[in-house]
Amino acid sequence: MENCVFCKIVEGKIPSAKVYEDSQTIAFLDINPANKGHCLAVPKKHSSDMIHTDDTVLQSLLPVAKKVAAALVAATGCSGYNLHMANGKDAGQEVFHLHIHIVPRFAGDGIEFQYEIKNYAETEMKEYQEKIRKFL
Amino acid sequence: MENCVFCKIVEGKIPSAKVYEDSQTIAFLDINPANKGHCLAVPKKHSSDMIHTDDTVLQSLLPVAKKVAAALVAATGCSGYNLHMANGKDAGQEVFHLHIHIVPRFAGDGIEFQYEIKNYAETEMKEYQEKIRKFL
Repeated sequence: MENCVFCKIVEGKIPSAKVYEDSQTIAFLDINPANKGHCLAVPKKHSSDMIHTDDTVLQSLLPVAKKVAAALVAATGCSGYNLHMANGKDAGQEVFHLHIHIVPRFAGDGIEFQYEIKNYAETEMKEYQEKIRKFL
Repeated sequence: MENCVFCKIVEGKIPSAKVYEDSQTIAFLDINPANKGHCLAVPKKHSSDMIHTDDTVLQSLLPVAKKVAAALVAATGCSGYNLHMANGKDAGQEVFHLHIHIVPRFAGDGIEFQYEIKNYAETEMKEYQEKIRKFL
């Protein structure tokens, strides 16, 4: 897609520190890492976010993330790893080409994915369950 | 797996606010939601984390997350959604049965997945690229 930075990386028009590539997916180092080694796995076929991505593309993504995570464990000695995906501006998405972050984690590295828990009122959980199920 | 709370939910031995189920996967409301509607998608087959999960199981997970995300958009009117997965205690994993969070997001909801960027020194990015590629 024109003017998409990740499409340009896929096409080799913008350089990246690529660590993996197959017919559907590439993975490269994030230039603004949460921890050194932080990678992005990116489908080659452009889509803006998960809801607008073909199932066949989605099926290919976690097996690649698994390979990358295993390589991060081997290469960096990380004791854990996070996957993270932002879909939509209000979720923190900045590049509107689907991508998943693979972040190596270390004890005491100071990264916090925290939030204030929103408690459900007494019957509210069941109400949410029912209204979500209607669409599934 | 014995003493695994998510295996017990899969088997129906512990109740959950289930929103989706197929042969491989279930999805239910997180009891400690970041936003109301926050769901977990969980493979029925036990595995501790992504590296120890069969590719066939991983392939099934994002298409389910996509269905759940679309339902969250329809049911809650959220303008975005995050996927998040913690693998290992140092990554924030608390239940050691693979699961992916699907969090509906709204403008100004106060959730922040922030971190201090760890800048690479001049040649360090290439060094990381090379040591990760060795394992891919």
